[in-house]
Amino acid sequence: MSSCEEQAYRLLTEYSNGFMVSQVLFAACELGVFDLLAEAPEPLGAVTVAAQLGTSSHGTELLLDTCVSLKLLQVETRRGKASYQNTELSSTYLVRASPKCQGNMLRYLARTTYLCWGHLAQAVRDGKNQYQEAFGVPSDELFTAIYRSEGERRLFMRALQDVWSVSGRRVLAAFDLSPFPVICDVGGDFFKDPLPEADLYILARVLHDWTDARCSHLLARIHRACKPGGGVLVIESLLDADGRGPLTTQLYSLNMLVQTEGRERTPAQYLGLLAAAGFQDFQCRRTGGIYDAILARR
Amino acid sequence: MSSCEEQAYRLLTEYSNGFMVSQVLFAACELGVFDLLAEAPEPLGAVTVAAQLGTSSHGTELLLDTCVSLKLLQVETRRGKASYQNTELSSTYLVRASPKCQGNMLRYLARTTYLCWGHLAQAVRDGKNQYQEAFGVPSDELFTAIYRSEGERRLFMRALQDVWSVSGRRVLAAFDLSPFPVICDVGGDFFKDPLPEADLYILARVLHDWTDARCSHLLARIHRACKPGGGVLVIESLLDADGRGPLTTQLYSLNMLVQTEGRERTPAQYLGLLAAAGFQDFQCRRTGGIYDAILARR
Repeated sequence: MSSCEEQAYRLLTEYSNGFMVSQVLFAACELGVFDLLAEAPEPLGAVTVAAQLGTSSHGTELLLDTCVSLKLLQVETRRGKASYQNTELSSTYLVRASPKCQGNMLRYLARTTYLCWGHLAQAVRDGKNQYQEAFGVPSDELFTAIYRSEGERRLFMRALQDVWSVSGRRVLAAFDLSPFPVICDVGGDFFKDPLPEADLYILARVLHDWTDARCSHLLARIHRACKPGGGVLVIESLLDADGRGPLTTQLYSLNMLVQTEGRERTPAQYLGLLAAAGFQDFQCRRTGGIYDAILARR
Repeated sequence: MSSCEEQAYRLLTEYSNGFMVSQVLFAACELGVFDLLAEAPEPLGAVTVAAQLGTSSHGTELLLDTCVSLKLLQVETRRGKASYQNTELSSTYLVRASPKCQGNMLRYLARTTYLCWGHLAQAVRDGKNQYQEAFGVPSDELFTAIYRSEGERRLFMRALQDVWSVSGRRVLAAFDLSPFPVICDVGGDFFKDPLPEADLYILARVLHDWTDARCSHLLARIHRACKPGGGVLVIESLLDADGRGPLTTQLYSLNMLVQTEGRERTPAQYLGLLAAAGFQDFQCRRTGGIYDAILARR
């Protein structure tokens, strides 16, 4: 095997094992590994962790050691006894008590998104989301499927909150919003109910759920409600101009395919939608994070 | 957000999206993207690919462009028209006609392994495989669960063949096997049926399916059947001495947890099992690939 073939095989193995890495993270969160270690007065051995969590000793030790390889935990061995503790990463993002904890998002990915993605091939065939196949619920009314139980609705909302606890500050700081005294964060059933009058409408990860036609309809409604001199702030993960990156945004666009009626878009695609609804004076700011911001004026 | 926190968040995102990367690979294989491009006389546009595969145009274009980001495809744009073709990686490992094609293994991972891993947290709790939860089949007799239908049995066998088409040569070349005129590749129902007399017994990814007790039982049977001067060749993915790497082997050991009764082991653990059965004269060879080899003499 040439070294080039070998490198390719290693990359292939990394891709094909990607779901295992996700599940190590999801399982360690679900079992409460990071919370237990955060609350313990000192690093804990695998036997103690297993006893406290009520989990098998072999499975627990293996999970902890795999977390070490993934830099989700660190281990220290003294007199032959291994003790585990959280890393900066897990202390910041995986411990419930941290303001930036992503636990709800990870639970949502593990319970809902992971299952929808099991039908990706079918979604590419059909060009539509897979709630029927994954959960047996119709998705003619998208949010009836997304909010299909009270628990699911609450988890989804909390998952979105988790993301904004990390990315919110940066996207809101992308523009000076002080010229807009009344700001409306658009959410809920916004296709039917009257929109309140405001100077700025924020559409944070709203348009990516919907087809171009539905986006145009919503933007036209906002344009009508918007005060003179007002505008709209679109917060989305932006595709590159040619649609061929960044990888994370492409994956999220495929996620829109399996979970919504929409897609992620390029800046030009958003500008096209905004212009058709009567907006102008576009400014697009890349934040360097996953989410970017586009400001347009009425 | 400090740059350290940002780096950690990026790593977390990579882990949590790992299953999406796996599914892009699995779906592109299942839909026949790589075979179609291999058989086409020239690079194809997304519209042609969608028409030939009978898939949605948006989903197909998005899948192809994501494959480009993953180096599974390459794209060329001439006069504004994008055309896709296979890379070295996909030509070697993802095209059915290639002798090293991993298509069956990827299909097995997508259909079976991915679903078992959806229950990883439960497997860590129980310390046992998840066939009952994932497929509703009992696993008291492990291979009754693994071979639960003729199609599943055949896919599993072909998946193993795929792996050996890449790794087989290297593990068999790790030792000079010419002193062993009669070689028995141990497989099938080897706990009950009489074992044929041979000079060398090859146990390729057999021991990792079983508990220490079952391994000891099998190795004792082999020791009794083995000709004087003969031996056993154990081929497995070896854990580091402290059990904390390599990551791929740790993931495979967790895979043994969710899919078998066994685990991956360190060289010392295999030596312990072999010695207890009466074998001696151990030699362990790391191949640099995923699978390694241990030779022991009767």
